[in-house]
Amino acid sequence: MTTKELLLNAVAQPAQDAGDRITVVGVGAVGMACAFSILSQGYSSDVVLIDVMKDKLKGELMDLQHGSLFMRNPRINASTDYTATAGSKICIVTAGARQLDGETRLDLVQRNTDIMKHIIPPLVKHSPNTILLIVSNPCDILCYVAWKLSGLPQNRIIGSGTNLDTSRFRFLIASKLGIAPTSVHAWIIGEHGDSSVPVWSGINVAGVRLRDLNPDLGTEHDKENWKELHEKVVSSAYEVIKCKGYTNWAIGLSVSALVHTLLNNVNRVHAVSTCVKGLHGIEDDVFLSLPAVLGENGIISIVSQKLTDTEEAALQKAAKVMSEEQQKLKLPK
Amino acid sequence: MTTKELLLNAVAQPAQDAGDRITVVGVGAVGMACAFSILSQGYSSDVVLIDVMKDKLKGELMDLQHGSLFMRNPRINASTDYTATAGSKICIVTAGARQLDGETRLDLVQRNTDIMKHIIPPLVKHSPNTILLIVSNPCDILCYVAWKLSGLPQNRIIGSGTNLDTSRFRFLIASKLGIAPTSVHAWIIGEHGDSSVPVWSGINVAGVRLRDLNPDLGTEHDKENWKELHEKVVSSAYEVIKCKGYTNWAIGLSVSALVHTLLNNVNRVHAVSTCVKGLHGIEDDVFLSLPAVLGENGIISIVSQKLTDTEEAALQKAAKVMSEEQQKLKLPK
Amino acid sequence: MTTKELLLNAVAQPAQDAGDRITVVGVGAVGMACAFSILSQGYSSDVVLIDVMKDKLKGELMDLQHGSLFMRNPRINASTDYTATAGSKICIVTAGARQLDGETRLDLVQRNTDIMKHIIPPLVKHSPNTILLIVSNPCDILCYVAWKLSGLPQNRIIGSGTNLDTSRFRFLIASKLGIAPTSVHAWIIGEHGDSSVPVWSGINVAGVRLRDLNPDLGTEHDKENWKELHEKVVSSAYEVIKCKGYTNWAIGLSVSALVHTLLNNVNRVHAVSTCVKGLHGIEDDVFLSLPAVLGENGIISIVSQKLTDTEEAALQKAAKVMSEEQQKLKLPK
Amino acid sequence: MTTKELLLNAVAQPAQDAGDRITVVGVGAVGMACAFSILSQGYSSDVVLIDVMKDKLKGELMDLQHGSLFMRNPRINASTDYTATAGSKICIVTAGARQLDGETRLDLVQRNTDIMKHIIPPLVKHSPNTILLIVSNPCDILCYVAWKLSGLPQNRIIGSGTNLDTSRFRFLIASKLGIAPTSVHAWIIGEHGDSSVPVWSGINVAGVRLRDLNPDLGTEHDKENWKELHEKVVSSAYEVIKCKGYTNWAIGLSVSALVHTLLNNVNRVHAVSTCVKGLHGIEDDVFLSLPAVLGENGIISIVSQKLTDTEEAALQKAAKVMSEEQQKLKLPK
Repeated sequence: MTTKELLLNAVAQPAQDAGDRITVVGVGAVGMACAFSILSQGYSSDVVLIDVMKDKLKGELMDLQHGSLFMRNPRINASTDYTATAGSKICIVTAGARQLDGETRLDLVQRNTDIMKHIIPPLVKHSPNTILLIVSNPCDILCYVAWKLSGLPQNRIIGSGTNLDTSRFRFLIASKLGIAPTSVHAWIIGEHGDSSVPVWSGINVAGVRLRDLNPDLGTEHDKENWKELHEKVVSSAYEVIKCKGYTNWAIGLSVSALVHTLLNNVNRVHAVSTCVKGLHGIEDDVFLSLPAVLGENGIISIVSQKLTDTEEAALQKAAKVMSEEQQKLKLPK
Repeated sequence: MTTKELLLNAVAQPAQDAGDRITVVGVGAVGMACAFSILSQGYSSDVVLIDVMKDKLKGELMDLQHGSLFMRNPRINASTDYTATAGSKICIVTAGARQLDGETRLDLVQRNTDIMKHIIPPLVKHSPNTILLIVSNPCDILCYVAWKLSGLPQNRIIGSGTNLDTSRFRFLIASKLGIAPTSVHAWIIGEHGDSSVPVWSGINVAGVRLRDLNPDLGTEHDKENWKELHEKVVSSAYEVIKCKGYTNWAIGLSVSALVHTLLNNVNRVHAVSTCVKGLHGIEDDVFLSLPAVLGENGIISIVSQKLTDTEEAALQKAAKVMSEEQQKLKLPK
Repeated sequence: MTTKELLLNAVAQPAQDAGDRITVVGVGAVGMACAFSILSQGYSSDVVLIDVMKDKLKGELMDLQHGSLFMRNPRINASTDYTATAGSKICIVTAGARQLDGETRLDLVQRNTDIMKHIIPPLVKHSPNTILLIVSNPCDILCYVAWKLSGLPQNRIIGSGTNLDTSRFRFLIASKLGIAPTSVHAWIIGEHGDSSVPVWSGINVAGVRLRDLNPDLGTEHDKENWKELHEKVVSSAYEVIKCKGYTNWAIGLSVSALVHTLLNNVNRVHAVSTCVKGLHGIEDDVFLSLPAVLGENGIISIVSQKLTDTEEAALQKAAKVMSEEQQKLKLPK
Repeated sequence: MTTKELLLNAVAQPAQDAGDRITVVGVGAVGMACAFSILSQGYSSDVVLIDVMKDKLKGELMDLQHGSLFMRNPRINASTDYTATAGSKICIVTAGARQLDGETRLDLVQRNTDIMKHIIPPLVKHSPNTILLIVSNPCDILCYVAWKLSGLPQNRIIGSGTNLDTSRFRFLIASKLGIAPTSVHAWIIGEHGDSSVPVWSGINVAGVRLRDLNPDLGTEHDKENWKELHEKVVSSAYEVIKCKGYTNWAIGLSVSALVHTLLNNVNRVHAVSTCVKGLHGIEDDVFLSLPAVLGENGIISIVSQKLTDTEEAALQKAAKVMSEEQQKLKLPK
């Protein structure tokens, strides 16, 4: 008899699955920050890493496993084979190419679409009821691609979108006011990145709208220059990348928060990328971030914000550009 | 249109179940401490309370719900009707009568068996794959009753057993040594309560066996009187009850820890009541506490401890008494 | 040599204090729910219980200590002697008498004032830089009493106030909308209890004011009867008490949340009772709940909400009654 | 008046320090994994990053701050100036050079000693009561250097040492047995890295010594080849580095666990590097890992493990080499 057999009298088969499996596709800086945030915060007990780089995958797996003693004994797995992802509640997609010098945005999108063709179908094959959480950039249009490639209903396609932009915005406002970011209620919507839209009219602390105190808030005329905070949100991704080469911690935490909300059916409101057809005068099947109620079934509902004409125009413009790009994309029929 | 309809564009049906439902039967001090520990520690997002006392049930439900803002928005429900428990991963049974003056132990067991007849079958009917976690006393024999009434395999019947006695023991040892209870490895096994068995030979800190330092540890000859710590474990339940009328916090936390281990498939070792037939020379289908590996499927395996003749004799004696009592119980065929 | 000496080579004296001591005065249902919430959520590693009932105190202490293994080895102490509280960062006062049949409110306040005379001075003597967190009822006027008795600056006197009413309100709104309470931003201010004031104009989800969707929200004319939710908040304390005899879980969690914010210098906004002289047209040194920024130094600032005339009138009326009562109280000079 | 002044009525100055400040020196992969683990697990509310690389520092600071919304609003700061570290409870040192091709070990130690001369004195100047937690390699000898440079008592110098090796060892044993690492009690002591010493005799599960089941455990004669698990521990650091270029997650989590134990005065036992003079026949002031009780005052006591002659010889040999190296080091008088 082995030491194990002498030590343990078997009673039942151990379970292979605790029902909270999360798959992370892509073990770059972003994917690993997502996986590590989820594990170190104890939000899932079962994480699977997928990538094509065998060595990197093995190194990251071992490094996470070596920390098991200090977590809650999570089950961690890594594979180049998607069968390991079977039964995932959520699949987080962080893989994708970066823009090359001289490359058009459309060329980048097509390249990433081609990558998605190898990721989305096997994910859905092994987890037909999964939620797809798209983090790869450009996030919004890749949600459309994931939707088309997966055949999943729209509520199961979520882009991390402006959840991060919103977090940066709240941190900056909170710092200016000297209070906690969780006590600042402010939202950035629309396309993740340069053309994102801050909803100045809704910003409030304890129900007090800042625009009721300062009617010029967010405008050119504002003597306190609050507008600068949104400009900093837009520039900050570039600045972090310039300083350290990539961003990972904040996006990892923001994705981890989404996972917590989805997995525990919390019905909390987050700004995430979702299909916005029929909202704010948008007629096309495009994905943009709006505040949405998230639960076990993905997107449960979308909050109707009252936007100004300028804000709606910005959304519609982003939607139009995106729709045109989508029509040029080569997708399988 | 209602305010809700104006605010929220419905996208999908909210999920009714996040897959981690826990039912607590009995909303007395023990049941509520279990429920509150599980909720305040965020170990489940879905707790159902069951009792026959409608008013008490309503009061406890409202009081928990009023604290939702400070938890993770758990789904909390309460009902006198077991249909509310459908799909529970774990059902914690804390209901039961207390010993009356002049009542024999067997009479008490029969009374609680009669109560279990109204609890166990409907639990299993609505959650056929559940784990039954028996906290009601006498815990060990009620595990046998639950096993017989439920028709569940033995790995799905778990008694909270000496998990609490072990916790008390470690706290007392830890206090004597001036270190953390989690750094003291000591086990109390056997019957929960007066005739529990401390395994002196296994007590260690960082792999150093205390008996290698003090060969008399736990015996009559020990000048340091470590034996007293086990006596205090046995007397402490009585003392707490004398002082405050009941015990609740420690049993609540100990049950919550079991729930965490089971629900997250942690495969951690706890001293819990399980069917011990075939172990330590016991021939009958009786339930006693031994260190066991717990996971999503309940009892995965039982640790084979090397016991002294005295320790084994104590277990066998408890088993024999229990087996005789079990044969006298009136159970449905 | 003892077993301990053989096991452990002493290097340094263990610290007696980790710098996060919390004292809870009163070990009734409310005090214990506060202590247990703080401990089970790991918000402090050092809790001291104070009461005059030796037996109850001993029972509660033992029961908490027996659960140490399942917490983070907190240091828990209990005493009838206030020297045990020395160096507390926060002292939570839950002790106090309940209203007797036929007793006037003023008589009750005087009785509780007399109790505070035995509690507040020794607390401040042993922890001269503490924050006093008053939970005993009537909470607001007892804050004034605690302020007078303690000689502490106003920022160090905090009443749990409408933090709980607000939590109940958000739960009810959240249930009506089908979203998480943390995503509903709504505030109840003023006096804790029957005459509390819901700030209908500020209620929002993701920056969308519900009154912009339903202008009658909270008024008599509202066809959806949202007003009923505030009525339920007011009646719910009575209903819980009728059903189970007392309330404890929600107040325990709400106090635990305040402790977390204060101890970690979070600067989060909570509705708590604070001295409101100079705000909303109030001229007297009275304590009422308003949204306040809380940090390591207690009340850092108070949010200026724009209230309607009716709302301000309600606050002023409560302030006036309270001020008159305060002048009749017998306090030491 | 500014928007802030209109919004917030100041009551008191915000606190600059919540009393749980942690400094991390070095923002490479290891330092950042330490900082992120501490922050994402909520173990401190106040983290300061120190490095000489301004840009990297700024990028990491911004990236962490952008995630504040998803943490507990921690105070995060970064500076090249040590005045920012004032009042730190713990200073974690991760800075240091890596071994160059052809460089002797002693040369490396001297280079890192020279680096420590710029780190340790300013840390201690601004936080005279701090605990120094040395993570830089070679960890053990740099503890000696930090001790000499700091003038702090030995209990305030802690090396992360074999806390990580132990974690890796437990994970591998746990995987072989199919149970949780937290239920496997096994220790690796001595020098961190290649010459670490596994204490085979103490390995136990629920007090059952594996060597009582398999007397050859860990030896050459063992048919089950458990020895291989220690070999894997030694090789795994190299393997992770080969696969991904560096290790960070496991060391980050292991350091975060130490911080939690120290900051909350938990008195938990960890294998960490400490001055071992007078223990196991070692006569010199050298630092090696042994199981130690850690609390608010650092190393409280060291567990006396009964080692075999071979194990003691291995420790003594490591100590001797280290002592000789220490005498050759150029340190300020």
